[in-house]
Amino acid sequence: MSKPETIDYKSAGVDIEAGNEAVRRMKQHVAKTHTSAVLSGLGAFGSLFSLKDAVAGLADPVMVQSTDGVGTKTKVTVMAGRYEELGRDLVAAVAGDIAVMGARPLTFLDYLGIHKVEPEIIEAIVRGMSDACAEAGIALVGGETAEMPAVYAPGELDVVGFVTGVVDREKLLDGSTTQEGDVVYGVESTGLHTNGWSLARKLLFQVAKHKVDDTPAELEGKSLADVLLAPHANYVKPIRRALDAGLPIRGMAHITGGGLVENTPRVLPEGFGADIDVRSWAAQPIFALLQKLGNIDAEEMHRVFNMGVGLAIIAPAGLLEELSTAFAPFRVWEIGKVTRAHAGVKLVEAE
Amino acid sequence: MSKPETIDYKSAGVDIEAGNEAVRRMKQHVAKTHTSAVLSGLGAFGSLFSLKDAVAGLADPVMVQSTDGVGTKTKVTVMAGRYEELGRDLVAAVAGDIAVMGARPLTFLDYLGIHKVEPEIIEAIVRGMSDACAEAGIALVGGETAEMPAVYAPGELDVVGFVTGVVDREKLLDGSTTQEGDVVYGVESTGLHTNGWSLARKLLFQVAKHKVDDTPAELEGKSLADVLLAPHANYVKPIRRALDAGLPIRGMAHITGGGLVENTPRVLPEGFGADIDVRSWAAQPIFALLQKLGNIDAEEMHRVFNMGVGLAIIAPAGLLEELSTAFAPFRVWEIGKVTRAHAGVKLVEAE
Repeated sequence: MSKPETIDYKSAGVDIEAGNEAVRRMKQHVAKTHTSAVLSGLGAFGSLFSLKDAVAGLADPVMVQSTDGVGTKTKVTVMAGRYEELGRDLVAAVAGDIAVMGARPLTFLDYLGIHKVEPEIIEAIVRGMSDACAEAGIALVGGETAEMPAVYAPGELDVVGFVTGVVDREKLLDGSTTQEGDVVYGVESTGLHTNGWSLARKLLFQVAKHKVDDTPAELEGKSLADVLLAPHANYVKPIRRALDAGLPIRGMAHITGGGLVENTPRVLPEGFGADIDVRSWAAQPIFALLQKLGNIDAEEMHRVFNMGVGLAIIAPAGLLEELSTAFAPFRVWEIGKVTRAHAGVKLVEAE
Repeated sequence: MSKPETIDYKSAGVDIEAGNEAVRRMKQHVAKTHTSAVLSGLGAFGSLFSLKDAVAGLADPVMVQSTDGVGTKTKVTVMAGRYEELGRDLVAAVAGDIAVMGARPLTFLDYLGIHKVEPEIIEAIVRGMSDACAEAGIALVGGETAEMPAVYAPGELDVVGFVTGVVDREKLLDGSTTQEGDVVYGVESTGLHTNGWSLARKLLFQVAKHKVDDTPAELEGKSLADVLLAPHANYVKPIRRALDAGLPIRGMAHITGGGLVENTPRVLPEGFGADIDVRSWAAQPIFALLQKLGNIDAEEMHRVFNMGVGLAIIAPAGLLEELSTAFAPFRVWEIGKVTRAHAGVKLVEAE
């Protein structure tokens, strides 16, 4: 028998050098997010973050955590070859989920699964994540990049974020103090954010056969890539401003999968519902384009897409000005009223 | 122009019903892991875990976190159609990374990205995760399942875990108190754990053209599926027993990617190295089979695979009996010595 061929890890499809190069490129970006609470030391198999300051003064500290990806928005990222926004999307999507509960996000970890490691792609994603974390005061403390050519389709990748924050138990926001007559305020989104992408891609690229660089008339001169890849609005800082200003917010719903219709009721007590006036704000043109392409009814549109509202805030009437100040540059509208006449969300068209 | 076909989310490739069914099936399993620290309430966009008891009595609480997947072990899972072990693997792999630093793992979140949601598959993975979490005293507080037919290859999936624990800063284990003459103790692994899978799959299924149910003579009657899918050893409880017993452990290295050669030095201070005697324990037969199939040298084997040692413990001489008691049923061996004669790990064959 002849001597068998020697097989090493690289010939098995894992490029360790590319992985090391990606790690080298990441470091400068990640470092921007590190405060003195990030402890780094010898032999770290995990990341270290000092909780001392974060829990000081909290009578009953509660850890709030969330994980998510960005759905198949990654496909459009790949089509356009623009990766930095993806990192921003991930942080805004995941951190928003705990910020709406009143938590102060402390740390972020990411996982990137990818068909083939390209150091420039990894660097662009991590740069976007780092910038978004730094802006929101979150430490990017760890992460993992896995090259898995047999699992991910050629050219494809998935990104996953994990966020951890803390809040004093009595300051947890869950909508339980909601009263009849409270207002639903809507904070504008920057576009599709990270939900509804399977349907959006089907409509734009299969039904309408668009290319990602097309500029459909409905988009008023912008390209699909520019409109679609606009990063998810990062609401962490504005939410902190509103809460630190002491605004009497009852609860906030991050408008993710399920839209206004399914997310708003998540912060309403039993027996309460909301009438949302769909004429009270103007959704970006991309939503009308999608609706037309799929002949989709309004109710379904409001279940799949955020329709231009990324955050619903339940609060007493009369707070529009204060909320607008806290959430600038994002616009805030009065989009509905809390009611006890029905449960869930009713889409109405008030005159 | 004719009325366009109405397109909904399901026709775009996302099966919401299957997702809801998967969530229904998960609940009973996840509930097993919940203690009174897990707070569940209205409108939760994130998971809630009370830190009150966890940080009580810690002078300087440090949060320790890690994220990882299980590599392309998922491919073998899919080949064999056995998913429960995958959940166990994920918890053991990720929680082990913070347990070795002395942290008490508190919470776990998971992300499952998959080509197509099959509720039974999701349930099996979550059952395995829940059982492993419950055994290790970890609360499975959250997770996300994403169906992405365009990103994952047909039949494929990726799983990602995220663990958070705490430790008092003075009890952080980083190997810094290591002294010359300390012993490297090895704790047995249950097989390949979650590293080296791209190479292992290439050797077994491409070079040797095995099927996953084959029983190669080298495996002493066991099938490849049984040997390969043996879940990653969960060291969380044994590590806690050893630390709670006050054993003077300097540091512990989780033997993951990079093997003993690259992981052991991560808990040795600068100027220290280790001589590892490769005859001092018996690796499982699967490693010899892989080495033979690839004609791989010993050094490379010890960089890619754990070679039968899942955990390296640096501690003073004379602790074999106490460590064996703490780590039972896992066997413990003296596998090497700490030295100042060289840095890094030298593989030796002592007589």
